[in-house]
Amino acid sequence: MMLKRNKKLISAITSFVMVLAIVLTTSSNVFAFFNSSKAATPVFQGKAPKYVFLFIGDGMSYPQIASTEMYLGKQGRLNDLVKGGGIEQLNFSKFPVSGAAQTFDATSFIPDSASTATSIASGYKTLSGVINMDISKQIEYTPISESLATKGYKVGIVSSVPINHATPASFYSKVPHRNEYYNIALQLADSGFDYFGGGGFLSPQGNGQTHIYEVLEEKGYNLALDKASILNLNNKSGKVVAINPDMSVDGTSLPYEVDRKQGELALADFVRKGIDVLDNPKGFFMMVEGGKIDWANHANDAVASIHDTIAFSNAVEEAIRFYNKHPEDTLIIVTGDHETGGMSIGFAGTGYSTFFDKLDRANTSANDIFRREVLNPYKEKHTMETAKLSDLALDIKYSFGVLIPNDPEARFYPEMVLNANEIQRLEAALKQSMTPSNQRNYSQQERLMYGGYEPLSITLTHILNNKAGITFGTYDHTGLPVPVFALGKGQELFTGFYDNTDIYRKMAAILNVR
Amino acid sequence: MMLKRNKKLISAITSFVMVLAIVLTTSSNVFAFFNSSKAATPVFQGKAPKYVFLFIGDGMSYPQIASTEMYLGKQGRLNDLVKGGGIEQLNFSKFPVSGAAQTFDATSFIPDSASTATSIASGYKTLSGVINMDISKQIEYTPISESLATKGYKVGIVSSVPINHATPASFYSKVPHRNEYYNIALQLADSGFDYFGGGGFLSPQGNGQTHIYEVLEEKGYNLALDKASILNLNNKSGKVVAINPDMSVDGTSLPYEVDRKQGELALADFVRKGIDVLDNPKGFFMMVEGGKIDWANHANDAVASIHDTIAFSNAVEEAIRFYNKHPEDTLIIVTGDHETGGMSIGFAGTGYSTFFDKLDRANTSANDIFRREVLNPYKEKHTMETAKLSDLALDIKYSFGVLIPNDPEARFYPEMVLNANEIQRLEAALKQSMTPSNQRNYSQQERLMYGGYEPLSITLTHILNNKAGITFGTYDHTGLPVPVFALGKGQELFTGFYDNTDIYRKMAAILNVR
Repeated sequence: MMLKRNKKLISAITSFVMVLAIVLTTSSNVFAFFNSSKAATPVFQGKAPKYVFLFIGDGMSYPQIASTEMYLGKQGRLNDLVKGGGIEQLNFSKFPVSGAAQTFDATSFIPDSASTATSIASGYKTLSGVINMDISKQIEYTPISESLATKGYKVGIVSSVPINHATPASFYSKVPHRNEYYNIALQLADSGFDYFGGGGFLSPQGNGQTHIYEVLEEKGYNLALDKASILNLNNKSGKVVAINPDMSVDGTSLPYEVDRKQGELALADFVRKGIDVLDNPKGFFMMVEGGKIDWANHANDAVASIHDTIAFSNAVEEAIRFYNKHPEDTLIIVTGDHETGGMSIGFAGTGYSTFFDKLDRANTSANDIFRREVLNPYKEKHTMETAKLSDLALDIKYSFGVLIPNDPEARFYPEMVLNANEIQRLEAALKQSMTPSNQRNYSQQERLMYGGYEPLSITLTHILNNKAGITFGTYDHTGLPVPVFALGKGQELFTGFYDNTDIYRKMAAILNVR
Repeated sequence: MMLKRNKKLISAITSFVMVLAIVLTTSSNVFAFFNSSKAATPVFQGKAPKYVFLFIGDGMSYPQIASTEMYLGKQGRLNDLVKGGGIEQLNFSKFPVSGAAQTFDATSFIPDSASTATSIASGYKTLSGVINMDISKQIEYTPISESLATKGYKVGIVSSVPINHATPASFYSKVPHRNEYYNIALQLADSGFDYFGGGGFLSPQGNGQTHIYEVLEEKGYNLALDKASILNLNNKSGKVVAINPDMSVDGTSLPYEVDRKQGELALADFVRKGIDVLDNPKGFFMMVEGGKIDWANHANDAVASIHDTIAFSNAVEEAIRFYNKHPEDTLIIVTGDHETGGMSIGFAGTGYSTFFDKLDRANTSANDIFRREVLNPYKEKHTMETAKLSDLALDIKYSFGVLIPNDPEARFYPEMVLNANEIQRLEAALKQSMTPSNQRNYSQQERLMYGGYEPLSITLTHILNNKAGITFGTYDHTGLPVPVFALGKGQELFTGFYDNTDIYRKMAAILNVR
């Protein structure tokens, strides 16, 4: 009975609050909005959350999320909702609040990761390539991570790509150009932040300067460079830089999730260990970048994009687990910095149909594994005259799931067999791949078909995408807005359609940063 | 002084409400969400709004909105935010609440307008092509418009495409297939709804049956078929069907906004007159479809898409004007039913650059004006042997803004001059256009290039899009989620990322429809 009465009371209070909220919203914010050209300064009256997670899926917008949710749904396999299919929502797309943000920067509707991360981290638009500085490259901006560190929050920065890449760098450095990797790394060492985890360092020695590891140790950082050291990290580990021991072939980024071997650390592991290191009664701020989503979409690799979006979602799961223990004190924000690739769930050749189950037949990324580990060595052993597509048939089948017509398994997977037109495109691409890249004389059409990618691997990628009903419009970023999802303290501020600099302003309002 | 004190009081109340809202949200909704696989039933405790507007931009999702906002922004011309550019937000994208909705239907990730409108109108997933019936085509669903009419609301249905097309039809009819146009029209006449406006009737006589106008008059409808009659409509006009006198060349849809001549009625006029007819103390529900946004994107026509999105926004403006007079009693929802075309703001050939100012040089739609009024008559007068691209140069320049190299104005608009590759593509397309469509033997590549469209007009469209930095992936719909914007009473329910059937459930909760 008491319970019932309490419920009634809560219901009455809820009702009262709702009505009040409506009246207040309707009579102030809304009018303010329509009366001014600029969005009103966000207002937050509650107590600031102690624990803040900001997840940025680089290159991740609606197409990347929706394609992953379709792939995960049973319809990806059955192609029939009636038979029990549908989508499977990712954890963050189920957050109670979502809005959307525009991503253009100071000179381009299609921005880069330095300018967009600066907008999110510091609240200012700047030029593509610039990190936390104004367009004249004279004035420095303070990222929210730094302001929070000053307030006593511990700070952690995690990325699946190099830790001194543009997105993570925007949370601890100020440089006129994102390519100043060694300078950025020095600013990392000077930040005093508590935890850096994931990818390694680009240009760790600059131009023959002191190795960044030495600098870090001088500055009091503990380096965790093997799996055991990383898994042993805890809140007694001091200031930590944890670098993944099992890097992708580029040497400084986590493997694409589709390529990650059993036992190798994932992005989620670096988030979980980050929480272990950072957890303290005064609170922490953690920025986590799913950076290889962007790389996958630059390479138009739908398979790699989907699996890295899953890895990103697994990383968010660690934060949700933490939220469930501290729901009153935690805020989780999940967003993208821009869309990459112009991915379209729908292709002129497949019309209203999709065949996401075909993506299941692929086993590796196109770029890291097929290109670097298969095609590059093959090119060294062959000339244009000796190269034959059939030599690569088994590797193509393993990486992309597509079969040449005389593959012994062709009759089991007829939908994966390459047709004459596709074989022709692959033969032409192989010829270009066997031509030294500085001697390739692309027609306008070929430039569109191959971009700056290895012709054979990108053509295989496109063929598999198209078979699944997906296509891409570019090898670069696009101007598509990105979603913003929020869960926890202050979540209600993140609804609406706003500028990416407003993500900063909303965080600043909630965290009382001025 | 009093004012200041009041402000303090309001601030204190706001603070109290915010804290309460957070506590309540955190301790109930959020957990409920993560504990169940299904979204919680929406709860609304306020008084139902008396005036409800539901705007559906057919084929409109983030790319269509963002490209329009970029085109409208000064950066579209200056290409430099530093020089005062940027985007210009559409009125509805400034609404205080926004969420996103998945659009897949019962058998396809890429749905059609019948199944998606059924989801929004009635809350159920069904097959592509089906309107307000289940997948067995036996059970009928009741659209919210009908439920509200029963409750005493007046109901209005407006569309820029035929009024018995799938989207509007889903708000007053129940048919196993959207192509049953005459049956749908009969159900319109039987609906008893108060206002229908915009496009005309497809198949107005069925198979030699009574003309729908006769049926409508029998059922007590007043027909307003010329501009003066339409502009004279008011709340004494009784039940009205108002059909635009100045149709597009297809005879039953409003002209594309880019083609609309001065003095011709626009979608906004039909909304404004709808308000005049429907306004009454018991309230009304009005569904407004921007249907030609979809048609423009099927035709990959970025120019027509942008201008029709502006026309749609102008129509929303009428509702905002009404809202400003009745803010406590009005709810405006703006959404899309699905994305069309796979529009990407970014193209492999233009990289990180966009040139939206080039779209300004185009003056007509590709499909209605260039294809039907220029190309079709030209084809009747010429054979493949006599047809020359140069014959069409002036019309091409007027419609698309692109110039053949020897155009006398070429030196003023060098960026609009067609290059050798583009001329070659156009010559090839003209050859195909001059071939009777049943004799065109497309290669796989040509099928992708032309789809089911007139080869020359679609090629010109693609060339202009690409010059502006835009590309499309398909001639059909895509699986991209759509935004949902809300302003007014109950707006707070529309944040989050949910299914399109939840749009119905949220409206039903707010309007107390069971």
